Amino acid sequence: MDKFFNPESIAVVGASNTPFNLAATICGITTYMKYSGNVYAVNRKGEAVHGCPGYTTVMDIPGNVDLAVILISAKQVPTVVRQCGEKGIKHLIIESAGFSEGGPDGQSMQEEINGYISRYGMRLMGPNCLGILNTHNRFCCFYGIIPGKYDTGFATTGSISYIIQSGGIGALILDSFQKDMVTVSKMASIGNKSDIDESDIIDYYNGDASTEVIGMYLENVQNGRKLMNTAMKVKKPLLAFKVGRTSEGSQAAASHTAGMANNDAVFECACRQSGIIRLKSISELHSLPKIFASMPLLRGRRIAVMTNSGAFGGIAADLIVESGMEMTRLSPETQAKLDKTGQLFNVKNPVDLGPAMAKQTFLDIFDILLSAEEVDGLLPVPNVWQDVVIEAILDLVEMCRKYGKPAAIYVPNAIDRILQIREKYRIPLFESLEEATRALAVSYQQFRFLKKKERFHERNIRKGDFEKTESPVGV
Amino acid sequence: MDKFFNPESIAVVGASNTPFNLAATICGITTYMKYSGNVYAVNRKGEAVHGCPGYTTVMDIPGNVDLAVILISAKQVPTVVRQCGEKGIKHLIIESAGFSEGGPDGQSMQEEINGYISRYGMRLMGPNCLGILNTHNRFCCFYGIIPGKYDTGFATTGSISYIIQSGGIGALILDSFQKDMVTVSKMASIGNKSDIDESDIIDYYNGDASTEVIGMYLENVQNGRKLMNTAMKVKKPLLAFKVGRTSEGSQAAASHTAGMANNDAVFECACRQSGIIRLKSISELHSLPKIFASMPLLRGRRIAVMTNSGAFGGIAADLIVESGMEMTRLSPETQAKLDKTGQLFNVKNPVDLGPAMAKQTFLDIFDILLSAEEVDGLLPVPNVWQDVVIEAILDLVEMCRKYGKPAAIYVPNAIDRILQIREKYRIPLFESLEEATRALAVSYQQFRFLKKKERFHERNIRKGDFEKTESPVGV
Repeated sequence: MDKFFNPESIAVVGASNTPFNLAATICGITTYMKYSGNVYAVNRKGEAVHGCPGYTTVMDIPGNVDLAVILISAKQVPTVVRQCGEKGIKHLIIESAGFSEGGPDGQSMQEEINGYISRYGMRLMGPNCLGILNTHNRFCCFYGIIPGKYDTGFATTGSISYIIQSGGIGALILDSFQKDMVTVSKMASIGNKSDIDESDIIDYYNGDASTEVIGMYLENVQNGRKLMNTAMKVKKPLLAFKVGRTSEGSQAAASHTAGMANNDAVFECACRQSGIIRLKSISELHSLPKIFASMPLLRGRRIAVMTNSGAFGGIAADLIVESGMEMTRLSPETQAKLDKTGQLFNVKNPVDLGPAMAKQTFLDIFDILLSAEEVDGLLPVPNVWQDVVIEAILDLVEMCRKYGKPAAIYVPNAIDRILQIREKYRIPLFESLEEATRALAVSYQQFRFLKKKERFHERNIRKGDFEKTESPVGV
Repeated sequence: MDKFFNPESIAVVGASNTPFNLAATICGITTYMKYSGNVYAVNRKGEAVHGCPGYTTVMDIPGNVDLAVILISAKQVPTVVRQCGEKGIKHLIIESAGFSEGGPDGQSMQEEINGYISRYGMRLMGPNCLGILNTHNRFCCFYGIIPGKYDTGFATTGSISYIIQSGGIGALILDSFQKDMVTVSKMASIGNKSDIDESDIIDYYNGDASTEVIGMYLENVQNGRKLMNTAMKVKKPLLAFKVGRTSEGSQAAASHTAGMANNDAVFECACRQSGIIRLKSISELHSLPKIFASMPLLRGRRIAVMTNSGAFGGIAADLIVESGMEMTRLSPETQAKLDKTGQLFNVKNPVDLGPAMAKQTFLDIFDILLSAEEVDGLLPVPNVWQDVVIEAILDLVEMCRKYGKPAAIYVPNAIDRILQIREKYRIPLFESLEEATRALAVSYQQFRFLKKKERFHERNIRKGDFEKTESPVGV
């Protein structure tokens, strides 16, 4: 699987100098990103494209080819796949559409391709996909990318890796991370999943040292048991948004990437049983990973809220309780310590700081709360009109690591101000109180999933090899 | 009540040149905003503040005073209130804190104040509040406002009027509107509501020509029957966010503005019965009003989705169905018309436009959908990488008015791009697909509330005067 993400030589089949040629944009982006591997263009004339040497077929390319990226009209694809097999190319990405999602003709072509894949022992990503982005080696075979558009996203190496069934969602994630403090490690757009599916990629990301969190956008799941077995082996946070909670949504998704409608309750149950954190909105794919990448896990449900803007204490309390967590009762000792720090309006939870405070007072309060036995995590809601508060938040991130307890920080300012501060100071700010509360909730969910997975594996180690054990259904 | 929003002469009691004097910031902001009325400062030395002439007591001010704004320590307030009564000042705003929310001493001072209010026939806003902002005459008596900070929000006259029980929420709303295409008409911060409450302000806004939508942030409701009776009379959209859905949230709110905990189910029921749209988050206070200010009401539940980014069709379908609306079935005639416009990927709902389209094609599709009998409203999800799409959206807003059907537009781009476009082109863009769907849902809720209120009033007109009828409970 690693050759998909780290190929030394690539053939881009379909790239030519014809105006509006889509495959040419793949040669364009590899050249723009100065990808270090060899990139060859394959077209009828055998012409070079964006500086990539040209050949008329993959078989004419001298030497070894790790990966063929195919973007030609669907009816030409089976022949090219056969040629790739004969050339000994073991990894294919078919970006062309018009197969299973395109009616009976498309389906019969898909079957022909499947035959070659099996005969030559190849692995196939797609069809109807964008393929791979790897920020760590600057490899990208997405078509249609305008050079310069995603410079920040592509040039910054991140720790969040994605599996997506839609290029549009991938673009939204990359675009959103331009104003965030974490970003993408790898992205695999898997389209119709005729061979490689989400489980194969999860398995790869699980062993990938530069992936800390895995995010998935799914339109369907074809092999639920495989997904559950794979998920049970993964200790990294595994987040999934799935479209098709209603039959209308399922039908719309089916016309997009050829999936069967899935029963949503079954998927929900599978997620809970196999330790997949199910997301409630597309934006959670890029908003929530930062709680895992920047903070320790939440190891209990007792939360302390602190704010210098009174109303947000009550709003936060509602959200915490509705999310299944608790507003912790601060002990008399903790309250006495808080009282000593200055003129607090309220030393009970939610702690109300009043309007004007020095940086050291903020730090003292953070320290008292994080060190309190009765506090598992913080929801700080400090207004950041003054720079001194931003400095205090920078220190808070360090303190959270020291105490092994997370803080989900929301600053009650307009969204553009939040984005500015997050980008400039690289601090994990959430965009709403709802999002911050949700981040704590998923952090605690991950903590519980990990405990469950550990128990499951201990039991299976006693029984024998995990691979041979039953599926985790019923755990 | 109008004198609170349009006073010709104001006394700011407590404003002096002492460093960090909070009341002085009220003189500062009225001067900065070039408010046309007379503003007097009242302080021990009788000194002028920020160009406002100074007096030692309100009684020394020559001529009539419409409004006294009081921001001094709580224990001095009762005497000043009595002096205002003797001076014949009929409108008071007490911004000082330390009354009902501050224990037994505060409560006894509150009772003394109540006595004077009653004896002299005055009306009181507060205590523990910020008072009034009116963008239409540039009057603001909020304390602590840094001149220049809210220039956009204060200088632009809008059509959304607010009732808030927290200055922090007011600041967040004003700040958020700086990147929006609608903004604030008036804002009343009513604090502990010892005399004037939300119902009095709703009643005033209802008769105010420059208010189209009313938004409320409430921490408690003291007179629920009054609120319901008032709400039933209001045809403008009336939106409310209330803190205290849980007992933890109620307790936190009580320490903030001295309210009693309210049973949330009772409030929920009161909203449904009296036609108040209940909001789910603070951000809805500023995000949702634009659907009312810029679009016709949604008069049925059948929605057509159109997108040029396939995945969003399925996601939108899920959200529409989950919000109690329907994905409309486009008639064969409508589908045939859509098919004629160009190379659409999907002419069924969700309509998938494929990647590249001309402005005219967008307009043709909008026109076909809006004119279709089976469509009550649109959820367009166009990616706006090309400026031509923005031009098409500008025309769509006009077309919606022409057909009397709303569109809730979401562009699937990163949030900062959405804010940029919305601010520059003044088009009603929502910040997420969830928010756009919710806007359609509340528009339809308002349509049904209006029908219900009309039926209620017709019945009461037959019975006699509305004011004398029973409360709307049970309607």
